[in-house]
Amino acid sequence: MELPEKLLKVVKQFSRLPGVGEKTALRQTLIMTKWNKEDLVAFAEAVKNLSELNHCSKCGMYCDDQLCKICLDYHRVNAKTICVVESVTDCLAIERSGNFRGKFHILFGVLNPLLGIGPDELKLDTLINRVSNEEIEELILAVNPSVEGDATCAYIKQSLPSHINVDRIGFGIPMGGSLEFVDSLTITKALENRRHL
Amino acid sequence: MELPEKLLKVVKQFSRLPGVGEKTALRQTLIMTKWNKEDLVAFAEAVKNLSELNHCSKCGMYCDDQLCKICLDYHRVNAKTICVVESVTDCLAIERSGNFRGKFHILFGVLNPLLGIGPDELKLDTLINRVSNEEIEELILAVNPSVEGDATCAYIKQSLPSHINVDRIGFGIPMGGSLEFVDSLTITKALENRRHL
Repeated sequence: MELPEKLLKVVKQFSRLPGVGEKTALRQTLIMTKWNKEDLVAFAEAVKNLSELNHCSKCGMYCDDQLCKICLDYHRVNAKTICVVESVTDCLAIERSGNFRGKFHILFGVLNPLLGIGPDELKLDTLINRVSNEEIEELILAVNPSVEGDATCAYIKQSLPSHINVDRIGFGIPMGGSLEFVDSLTITKALENRRHL
Repeated sequence: MELPEKLLKVVKQFSRLPGVGEKTALRQTLIMTKWNKEDLVAFAEAVKNLSELNHCSKCGMYCDDQLCKICLDYHRVNAKTICVVESVTDCLAIERSGNFRGKFHILFGVLNPLLGIGPDELKLDTLINRVSNEEIEELILAVNPSVEGDATCAYIKQSLPSHINVDRIGFGIPMGGSLEFVDSLTITKALENRRHL
Protein backbone atom coordinates (compact mmCIF):
# COMPACT_ATOMS: atom_id res chain seq x y z
CA MET A 1 0.00 0.00 0.00
CA GLU A 2 1.02 3.60 -0.41
CA LEU A 3 1.97 5.32 2.83
CA PRO A 4 1.64 9.06 3.45
CA GLU A 5 4.44 11.26 2.13
CA LYS A 6 5.49 12.43 5.62
CA LEU A 7 6.10 8.86 6.71
CA LEU A 8 7.85 7.84 3.50
CA LYS A 9 10.28 10.75 3.75
CA VAL A 10 11.49 9.55 7.15
CA VAL A 11 11.69 5.94 5.94
CA LYS A 12 13.81 7.13 3.00
CA GLN A 13 16.16 9.06 5.26
CA PHE A 14 16.64 6.13 7.65
CA SER A 15 17.28 3.76 4.72
CA ARG A 16 20.35 5.82 3.85
CA LEU A 17 22.07 4.73 7.06
CA PRO A 18 24.40 1.72 7.04
CA GLY A 19 22.71 -1.54 8.03
CA VAL A 20 19.19 -0.11 7.74
CA GLY A 21 16.99 -1.62 5.06
CA GLU A 22 13.54 -0.42 4.12
CA LYS A 23 11.86 -2.81 6.54
CA THR A 24 13.90 -1.67 9.55
CA ALA A 25 13.46 1.96 8.50
CA LEU A 26 9.67 1.54 8.42
CA ARG A 27 9.69 -0.14 11.85
CA GLN A 28 11.76 2.68 13.30
CA THR A 29 9.57 5.33 11.69
CA LEU A 30 6.38 3.73 13.00
CA ILE A 31 7.84 3.71 16.52
CA MET A 32 8.70 7.39 16.12
CA THR A 33 5.13 8.28 15.15
CA LYS A 34 4.28 7.50 18.78
CA TRP A 35 6.84 10.00 20.13
CA ASN A 36 5.60 13.42 21.22
CA LYS A 37 6.52 16.59 19.35
CA GLU A 38 9.31 17.63 21.76
CA ASP A 39 11.13 14.33 21.28
CA LEU A 40 10.90 14.58 17.50
CA VAL A 41 12.21 18.16 17.56
CA ALA A 42 15.09 17.13 19.86
CA PHE A 43 16.01 14.33 17.42
CA ALA A 44 15.81 16.70 14.45
CA GLU A 45 17.88 19.39 16.16
CA ALA A 46 20.60 16.92 17.14
CA VAL A 47 20.91 15.74 13.54
CA LYS A 48 20.90 19.29 12.15
CA ASN A 49 23.63 20.39 14.58
CA LEU A 50 25.93 17.65 13.28
CA SER A 51 26.76 19.98 10.38
CA GLU A 52 28.33 22.37 12.91
CA LEU A 53 30.69 19.74 14.27
CA ASN A 54 34.28 20.99 14.15
CA HIS A 55 37.55 19.24 13.54
CA CYS A 56 40.22 19.66 16.22
CA SER A 57 42.75 22.15 14.85
CA LYS A 58 45.59 19.95 16.08
CA CYS A 59 44.76 16.30 15.51
CA GLY A 60 41.68 16.46 13.26
CA MET A 61 39.34 14.58 15.65
CA TYR A 62 35.72 15.77 15.91
CA CYS A 63 35.18 18.35 18.64
CA ASP A 64 32.67 20.93 19.87
CA ASP A 65 35.07 23.90 19.86
CA GLN A 66 38.66 24.47 18.82
CA LEU A 67 40.45 21.48 20.34
CA CYS A 68 39.25 17.94 21.00
CA LYS A 69 39.07 16.27 24.40
CA ILE A 70 42.19 14.19 23.73
CA CYS A 71 44.32 17.23 22.85
CA LEU A 72 42.96 19.08 25.91
CA ASP A 73 43.60 16.14 28.27
CA TYR A 74 46.28 17.46 30.65
CA HIS A 75 47.77 13.98 31.09
CA ARG A 76 48.57 13.97 27.39
CA VAL A 77 49.58 17.57 26.70
CA ASN A 78 53.24 16.75 27.22
CA ALA A 79 53.18 13.32 25.58
CA LYS A 80 56.10 12.80 23.18
CA THR A 81 54.32 10.17 21.07
CA ILE A 82 51.85 10.72 18.23
CA CYS A 83 49.78 7.87 16.86
CA VAL A 84 49.01 8.50 13.17
CA VAL A 85 45.73 7.04 11.87
CA GLU A 86 43.75 7.19 8.64
CA SER A 87 40.34 8.09 10.00
CA VAL A 88 38.28 9.14 13.00
CA THR A 89 36.95 5.61 13.38
CA ASP A 90 40.52 4.18 13.53
CA CYS A 91 41.32 6.73 16.24
CA LEU A 92 38.22 5.64 18.19
CA ALA A 93 39.20 1.96 17.82
CA ILE A 94 42.62 2.64 19.38
CA GLU A 95 41.07 4.73 22.15
CA ARG A 96 38.69 1.85 22.92
CA SER A 97 41.65 -0.52 23.37
CA GLY A 98 42.58 1.82 26.25
CA ASN A 99 46.34 1.23 26.17
CA PHE A 100 47.62 4.26 24.28
CA ARG A 101 48.04 7.45 26.30
CA GLY A 102 49.77 9.68 23.73
CA LYS A 103 48.43 12.10 21.14
CA PHE A 104 46.73 11.35 17.83
CA HIS A 105 46.97 12.67 14.32
CA ILE A 106 44.32 11.87 11.72
CA LEU A 107 45.45 11.87 8.08
CA PHE A 108 41.94 11.59 6.56
CA GLY A 109 43.06 9.02 4.00
CA VAL A 110 46.21 7.50 2.53
CA LEU A 111 48.26 8.40 -0.54
CA ASN A 112 46.53 7.07 -3.64
CA PRO A 113 47.85 8.38 -6.95
CA LEU A 114 45.18 6.49 -8.93
CA LEU A 115 42.44 8.40 -7.11
CA GLY A 116 44.43 11.62 -7.27
CA ILE A 117 45.17 11.70 -3.53
CA GLY A 118 48.65 13.14 -3.12
CA PRO A 119 50.44 14.53 -0.04
CA ASP A 120 48.56 17.86 -0.32
CA GLU A 121 45.18 16.13 0.08
CA LEU A 122 46.20 14.58 3.43
CA LYS A 123 47.04 16.29 6.71
CA LEU A 124 50.74 15.57 6.22
CA ASP A 125 52.14 19.12 6.46
CA THR A 126 50.38 19.73 9.79
CA LEU A 127 51.80 16.41 11.07
CA ILE A 128 55.35 17.50 10.19
CA ASN A 129 54.75 20.91 11.83
CA ARG A 130 53.40 19.25 14.97
CA VAL A 131 56.43 16.97 15.25
CA SER A 132 58.75 19.99 15.51
CA ASN A 133 56.40 22.32 17.45
CA GLU A 134 55.39 19.77 20.10
CA GLU A 135 58.88 18.24 20.41
CA ILE A 136 57.60 14.80 19.43
CA GLU A 137 60.11 11.97 19.79
CA GLU A 138 58.13 9.00 18.56
CA LEU A 139 55.57 8.37 15.83
CA ILE A 140 53.44 5.21 15.76
CA LEU A 141 51.98 4.72 12.29
CA ALA A 142 48.68 2.90 12.87
CA VAL A 143 47.88 2.94 9.14
CA ASN A 144 46.04 -0.08 7.77
CA PRO A 145 48.04 -2.65 5.78
CA SER A 146 47.67 -2.00 2.02
CA VAL A 147 49.90 -0.86 -0.83
CA GLU A 148 48.67 2.72 -0.31
CA GLY A 149 49.19 2.45 3.45
CA ASP A 150 52.76 1.20 2.95
CA ALA A 151 53.49 4.09 0.56
CA THR A 152 52.05 6.60 3.03
CA CYS A 153 54.23 5.22 5.83
CA ALA A 154 57.34 5.40 3.64
CA TYR A 155 56.49 9.01 2.69
CA ILE A 156 56.05 10.05 6.34
CA LYS A 157 59.30 8.35 7.36
CA GLN A 158 61.36 10.17 4.72
CA SER A 159 59.65 13.55 5.39
CA LEU A 160 60.73 13.59 9.04
CA PRO A 161 64.12 14.36 10.60
CA SER A 162 66.09 11.18 11.13
CA HIS A 163 66.22 11.47 14.95
CA ILE A 164 62.45 10.90 15.21
CA ASN A 165 61.65 7.29 16.05
CA VAL A 166 59.04 6.08 13.50
CA ASP A 167 57.33 2.72 14.17
CA ARG A 168 54.50 0.96 12.43
CA ILE A 169 51.94 -1.13 14.37
CA GLY A 170 52.45 -4.89 14.28
CA PHE A 171 50.64 -7.15 11.81
CA GLY A 172 49.96 -10.83 12.39
CA ILE A 173 47.38 -13.32 13.61
CA PRO A 174 44.57 -11.56 15.52
CA MET A 175 43.91 -12.58 19.12
CA GLY A 176 41.47 -15.48 19.22
CA GLY A 177 42.20 -16.08 15.53
CA SER A 178 42.97 -19.54 14.24
CA LEU A 179 45.82 -20.22 11.77
CA GLU A 180 43.42 -22.49 9.90
CA PHE A 181 41.14 -19.60 8.90
CA VAL A 182 43.64 -16.78 8.46
CA ASP A 183 44.62 -15.75 4.90
CA SER A 184 48.12 -16.55 3.67
CA LEU A 185 49.25 -12.92 3.47
CA THR A 186 48.56 -12.50 7.19
CA ILE A 187 50.45 -15.73 7.92
CA THR A 188 53.41 -14.46 5.86
CA LYS A 189 53.34 -11.20 7.87
CA ALA A 190 53.04 -13.11 11.13
CA LEU A 191 56.09 -15.23 10.25
CA GLU A 192 58.08 -12.10 9.34
CA ASN A 193 57.05 -10.44 12.60
CA ARG A 194 57.93 -13.44 14.82
CA ARG A 195 59.45 -12.56 18.19
CA HIS A 196 62.12 -14.37 20.13
CA LEU A 197 60.80 -15.77 23.44
CA MET B 1 37.26 8.38 25.22
CA GLU B 2 34.82 11.24 25.52
CA LEU B 3 33.25 12.31 22.26
CA PRO B 4 32.03 15.84 21.54
CA GLU B 5 28.57 16.75 22.82
CA LYS B 6 27.14 17.31 19.31
CA LEU B 7 28.04 13.75 18.33
CA LEU B 8 26.87 12.18 21.57
CA LYS B 9 23.46 13.85 21.28
CA VAL B 10 22.85 12.15 17.92
CA VAL B 11 24.14 8.81 19.24
CA LYS B 12 21.71 9.10 22.17
CA GLN B 13 18.78 9.84 19.85
CA PHE B 14 19.55 6.90 17.55
CA SER B 15 19.94 4.58 20.55
CA ARG B 16 16.27 5.21 21.39
CA LEU B 17 15.17 3.41 18.21
CA PRO B 18 14.28 -0.29 18.33
CA GLY B 19 17.16 -2.59 17.44
CA VAL B 20 19.78 0.17 17.64
CA GLY B 21 22.40 -0.23 20.35
CA GLU B 22 25.06 2.32 21.25
CA LYS B 23 27.59 0.76 18.88
CA THR B 24 25.27 0.87 15.85
CA ALA B 25 24.18 4.39 16.79
CA LEU B 26 27.81 5.56 16.87
CA ARG B 27 28.50 3.93 13.51
CA GLN B 28 25.45 5.60 11.97
CA THR B 29 26.35 8.96 13.48
CA LEU B 30 29.92 8.79 12.19
CA ILE B 31 28.62 8.06 8.69
CA MET B 32 26.31 11.05 8.98
CA THR B 33 29.19 13.38 9.90
CA LYS B 34 30.30 12.91 6.29
CA TRP B 35 26.94 14.11 4.89
CA ASN B 36 26.67 17.68 3.71
CA LYS B 37 24.53 20.24 5.49
CA GLU B 38 21.57 19.98 3.08
CA ASP B 39 21.27 16.24 3.67
CA LEU B 40 21.35 16.68 7.43
CA VAL B 41 18.70 19.40 7.30
CA ALA B 42 16.51 17.21 5.04
CA PHE B 43 16.79 14.35 7.56
CA ALA B 44 15.99 16.68 10.47
CA GLU B 45 13.00 18.24 8.69
CA ALA B 46 11.56 14.83 7.78
CA VAL B 47 11.73 13.74 11.42
CA LYS B 48 10.27 17.01 12.71
CA ASN B 49 7.35 16.83 10.25
CA LEU B 50 6.37 13.41 11.64
CA SER B 51 4.63 15.30 14.47
CA GLU B 52 2.23 16.77 11.87
CA LEU B 53 1.18 13.34 10.59
CA ASN B 54 -2.62 13.03 10.64
CA HIS B 55 -4.90 10.12 11.26
CA CYS B 56 -7.46 9.33 8.56
CA SER B 57 -10.80 10.62 9.82
CA LYS B 58 -12.49 7.42 8.63
CA CYS B 59 -10.25 4.42 9.34
CA GLY B 60 -7.54 5.89 11.61
CA MET B 61 -4.59 5.08 9.32
CA TYR B 62 -1.78 7.63 9.02
CA CYS B 63 -2.28 10.13 6.23
CA ASP B 64 -1.05 13.48 4.95
CA ASP B 65 -4.44 15.20 4.81
CA GLN B 66 -7.97 14.28 5.82
CA LEU B 67 -8.36 10.79 4.37
CA CYS B 68 -5.80 8.03 3.84
CA LYS B 69 -4.90 6.50 0.50
CA ILE B 70 -6.93 3.34 1.21
CA CYS B 71 -10.11 5.27 1.98
CA LEU B 72 -9.55 7.44 -1.14
CA ASP B 73 -8.92 4.41 -3.40
CA TYR B 74 -11.85 4.47 -5.84
CA HIS B 75 -11.80 0.67 -6.17
CA ARG B 76 -12.57 0.42 -2.47
CA VAL B 77 -14.98 3.31 -1.93
CA ASN B 78 -17.98 1.06 -2.45
CA ALA B 79 -16.54 -2.00 -0.70
CA LYS B 80 -19.02 -3.59 1.69
CA THR B 81 -16.39 -5.21 3.91
CA ILE B 82 -14.41 -3.62 6.74
CA CYS B 83 -11.38 -5.35 8.23
CA VAL B 84 -11.01 -4.35 11.89
CA VAL B 85 -7.44 -4.32 13.26
CA GLU B 86 -5.75 -3.28 16.51
CA SER B 87 -2.98 -1.10 15.14
CA VAL B 88 -1.47 0.62 12.11
CA THR B 89 1.20 -2.09 11.86
CA ASP B 90 -1.47 -4.82 11.74
CA CYS B 91 -3.19 -2.91 8.93
CA LEU B 92 0.13 -2.69 7.04
CA ALA B 93 0.72 -6.44 7.52
CA ILE B 94 -2.64 -7.27 5.93
CA GLU B 95 -2.04 -4.79 3.09
CA ARG B 96 1.31 -6.47 2.42
CA SER B 97 -0.41 -9.84 2.04
CA GLY B 98 -2.18 -8.18 -0.92
CA ASN B 99 -5.36 -10.24 -0.83
CA PHE B 100 -7.77 -7.94 0.94
CA ARG B 101 -9.44 -5.26 -1.18
CA GLY B 102 -11.97 -3.88 1.29
CA LYS B 103 -11.78 -1.05 3.82
CA PHE B 104 -9.98 -0.97 7.15
CA HIS B 105 -10.82 0.25 10.62
CA ILE B 106 -8.13 0.67 13.26
CA LEU B 107 -9.24 0.30 16.89
CA PHE B 108 -5.95 1.53 18.44
CA GLY B 109 -5.94 -1.21 21.07
CA VAL B 110 -8.23 -3.84 22.58
CA LEU B 111 -10.55 -3.77 25.58
CA ASN B 112 -8.47 -4.19 28.72
CA PRO B 113 -10.31 -3.46 32.01
CA LEU B 114 -7.11 -4.03 34.06
CA LEU B 115 -5.36 -1.19 32.19
CA GLY B 116 -8.50 0.95 32.22
CA ILE B 117 -9.14 0.58 28.49
CA GLY B 118 -12.90 0.47 28.02
CA PRO B 119 -15.05 0.91 24.88
CA ASP B 120 -14.67 4.72 25.07
CA GLU B 121 -10.87 4.53 24.73
CA LEU B 122 -11.12 2.60 21.45
CA LYS B 123 -12.51 3.73 18.09
CA LEU B 124 -15.62 1.59 18.59
CA ASP B 125 -18.34 4.23 18.21
CA THR B 126 -16.90 5.40 14.88
CA LEU B 127 -16.84 1.77 13.72
CA ILE B 128 -20.53 1.34 14.53
CA ASN B 129 -21.34 4.65 12.77
CA ARG B 130 -19.36 3.60 9.71
CA VAL B 131 -21.19 0.27 9.48
CA SER B 132 -24.53 2.08 9.09
CA ASN B 133 -23.30 5.11 7.08
CA GLU B 134 -21.31 3.13 4.53
CA GLU B 135 -23.84 0.29 4.25
CA ILE B 136 -21.31 -2.29 5.34
CA GLU B 137 -22.42 -5.91 5.06
CA GLU B 138 -19.43 -7.77 6.42
CA LEU B 139 -16.88 -7.24 9.20
CA ILE B 140 -13.66 -9.25 9.38
CA LEU B 141 -12.20 -9.00 12.87
CA ALA B 142 -8.42 -9.33 12.40
CA VAL B 143 -7.80 -8.86 16.12
CA ASN B 144 -4.89 -10.82 17.61
CA PRO B 145 -5.73 -13.94 19.64
CA SER B 146 -5.73 -13.09 23.38
CA VAL B 147 -8.28 -12.89 26.19
CA GLU B 148 -8.60 -9.13 25.55
CA GLY B 149 -8.90 -9.70 21.79
CA ASP B 150 -11.65 -12.26 22.31
CA ALA B 151 -13.54 -9.87 24.60
CA THR B 152 -13.20 -7.05 22.05
CA CYS B 153 -14.58 -9.28 19.29
CA ALA B 154 -17.52 -10.34 21.45
CA TYR B 155 -18.24 -6.67 22.29
CA ILE B 156 -18.18 -5.65 18.61
CA LYS B 157 -20.44 -8.56 17.62
CA GLN B 158 -23.12 -7.64 20.18
CA SER B 159 -22.95 -3.90 19.40
CA LEU B 160 -23.88 -4.41 15.76
CA PRO B 161 -27.25 -5.14 14.15
CA SER B 162 -27.72 -8.86 13.71
CA HIS B 163 -27.91 -8.75 9.88
CA ILE B 164 -24.21 -7.75 9.68
CA ASN B 165 -21.99 -10.71 8.98
CA VAL B 166 -19.17 -10.69 11.56
CA ASP B 167 -16.21 -13.06 11.02
CA ARG B 168 -12.94 -13.47 12.85
CA ILE B 169 -9.72 -14.39 10.99
CA GLY B 170 -8.67 -18.03 11.22
CA PHE B 171 -6.15 -19.30 13.75
CA GLY B 172 -3.98 -22.37 13.31
CA ILE B 173 -0.59 -23.62 12.17
CA PRO B 174 1.29 -20.91 10.24
CA MET B 175 2.41 -21.66 6.66
CA GLY B 176 5.83 -23.32 6.69
CA GLY B 177 5.35 -24.05 10.40
CA SER B 178 6.01 -27.49 11.81
CA LEU B 179 3.65 -29.21 14.26
CA GLU B 180 6.71 -30.25 16.25
CA PHE B 181 7.57 -26.67 17.17
CA VAL B 182 4.12 -25.12 17.47
CA ASP B 183 2.73 -24.50 20.99
CA SER B 184 -0.18 -26.63 22.21
CA LEU B 185 -2.69 -23.76 22.28
CA THR B 186 -2.13 -23.20 18.56
CA ILE B 187 -2.53 -26.94 17.93
CA THR B 188 -5.79 -26.95 19.89
CA LYS B 189 -7.02 -23.99 17.79
CA ALA B 190 -5.89 -25.69 14.58
CA LEU B 191 -7.81 -28.86 15.51
CA GLU B 192 -10.94 -26.80 16.29
CA ASN B 193 -10.59 -24.96 12.98
CA ARG B 194 -10.15 -28.11 10.88
CA ARG B 195 -11.79 -28.03 7.44
CA HIS B 196 -13.45 -30.83 5.56
CA LEU B 197 -11.56 -31.70 2.35
